[in-house]
Amino acid sequence: MSVGIFKNRVTELLGVQYPVIQGGMVYNSGAKLAAAVANAGGLGLLGAGSMLPDVFRDQIRKTRALTDRPFGVNIPLLFSHSTECVEIALAEKVNIFFTSAGSPKKVAAPLKDAHCTLVHVVASPVLARKCQDAGCDAVVCEGFEAGGHNGRDEITTMVLVPECVEAVDIPIIAAGGIATGAQMAAALALGAEGVQIGSRFAASVESSGHPDFKKAVVQADAGATQLVLKKQVPVRLMKNAFRDRIVEMEHRGATVEELVAELGKGRARAGMLEGDLDEGELEIGQVSGLISDIRPVSELMERLLNEYQATLDRLGGN
Amino acid sequence: MSVGIFKNRVTELLGVQYPVIQGGMVYNSGAKLAAAVANAGGLGLLGAGSMLPDVFRDQIRKTRALTDRPFGVNIPLLFSHSTECVEIALAEKVNIFFTSAGSPKKVAAPLKDAHCTLVHVVASPVLARKCQDAGCDAVVCEGFEAGGHNGRDEITTMVLVPECVEAVDIPIIAAGGIATGAQMAAALALGAEGVQIGSRFAASVESSGHPDFKKAVVQADAGATQLVLKKQVPVRLMKNAFRDRIVEMEHRGATVEELVAELGKGRARAGMLEGDLDEGELEIGQVSGLISDIRPVSELMERLLNEYQATLDRLGGN
Repeated sequence: MSVGIFKNRVTELLGVQYPVIQGGMVYNSGAKLAAAVANAGGLGLLGAGSMLPDVFRDQIRKTRALTDRPFGVNIPLLFSHSTECVEIALAEKVNIFFTSAGSPKKVAAPLKDAHCTLVHVVASPVLARKCQDAGCDAVVCEGFEAGGHNGRDEITTMVLVPECVEAVDIPIIAAGGIATGAQMAAALALGAEGVQIGSRFAASVESSGHPDFKKAVVQADAGATQLVLKKQVPVRLMKNAFRDRIVEMEHRGATVEELVAELGKGRARAGMLEGDLDEGELEIGQVSGLISDIRPVSELMERLLNEYQATLDRLGGN
Repeated sequence: MSVGIFKNRVTELLGVQYPVIQGGMVYNSGAKLAAAVANAGGLGLLGAGSMLPDVFRDQIRKTRALTDRPFGVNIPLLFSHSTECVEIALAEKVNIFFTSAGSPKKVAAPLKDAHCTLVHVVASPVLARKCQDAGCDAVVCEGFEAGGHNGRDEITTMVLVPECVEAVDIPIIAAGGIATGAQMAAALALGAEGVQIGSRFAASVESSGHPDFKKAVVQADAGATQLVLKKQVPVRLMKNAFRDRIVEMEHRGATVEELVAELGKGRARAGMLEGDLDEGELEIGQVSGLISDIRPVSELMERLLNEYQATLDRLGGN
């Protein structure tokens, strides 16, 4: 595959060969994964959301030791250590910031002053416009099918991407429901200039998720995930005993307080890092039904790009 | 646009120029709409679900008077008059049947004996496989973003289509979230060989929906629709006073009996045919946020195909 084929605003902005961004997932996106994606020509992101500040600094340094290509960080702005993580990343000379869960206004000024690239994750065209107004360089438009935390309007990637294309002039990176080259081609057909891929990279050799969590992703079938906790913070989880209880509570009209109490603390860590498949919070996308192996990132990236090219050839010769 | 570009299994199966099927929507899909779509080179479908048997027979005859091209019927199999409607359509020499809401096994034998084409609407790969086993010639794979009645697994078009491509060998028609040529290209990239379009044709001059309903579709913004009544039969509705009450009831854990009582009877007719925008059931897709005009079908079809071609050109030259 020729590199030139992918020259667009996203590859230019991020300085990458392919417009493929690896999602900054909690408990899955450490130095090994980010560096592997960078080395394969995409953009790797360290997921700060599950790291204490010292761990985060250490992971930035480790990533840099593993690759000389660009990489970035994902910082959820509602995360208790977000301000400290932004400062650490700036001090460590990171210059690509993906932010989520909160307003990018909070960090736009210091990041722009430091000549950093700022990309925010949104789930509606209204928020995409706010990001553009706040000075973001691009937006990740994440559809309802995406794993983990999600928007309240439940807009799917198929609808969200074209709506954001109409709403803003900055480049759009599609996320949610993208694990194959056919899906990447679909996202680019919709008007995105790049894709952010989570679940597929969670089930890679280099992901720091627990081996049993990765196996569960591979075993998941269609319909295995569901968006729950809509009264609190909507999150897409894989079926297990914990999720079943939450669904039952929601059906009987449980209050936010009851749901928060049931959720407790540390469930995401238990599920994804420690491999508690029954009582942990297993954040993964709907697309897990299409994932059937755990492979090294280099192989996944090659497969993705080959499938993408095959899809374009198929459409052109239709 | 050259016709040859669209020669595939769906155009061959249905005998149409373009792999574009107009959804058989209740209260919107009468003879005028079906004939207009047929005359524009797509497949028009009469929506039996909102017609009494005599009206249905009359609409078949009217469609035939308005076009000499192929058209079909959509019959929801759980509809109380479904058996009679199948018999009427057979007697009227209709030979393309789209069925939904129920098992196609119920009608496969008589329709195959009469050499008819049978296509069933599904929302999961498991059901797609069952349709293939039952002898269906194709399946419509309808994602979570689609208007009206929907599946329980909430699988979006972006994920559902590739999952069904893996599950079956018969051709797949994508539905849900498709109103533009970019979305049509995305659906074909995902592996569909045709698209079924509902909402965009509901807001056409030829749709039999109430003018106020069509205006509401045009005015709908992103996030205006929501999937509700999940405990009963999931249905995607536009925001209004009725839907707000249902959402409130669901939040407090209302029972199926309470929800059925609140739903009452005739709300779909009131909303879409009689234009009661407050208390009617307004079935429309998430994609309504991208629809901004009410135009004749011929113009909508031309726009769709032009956008489709422009999308392919953009991807090829990326």
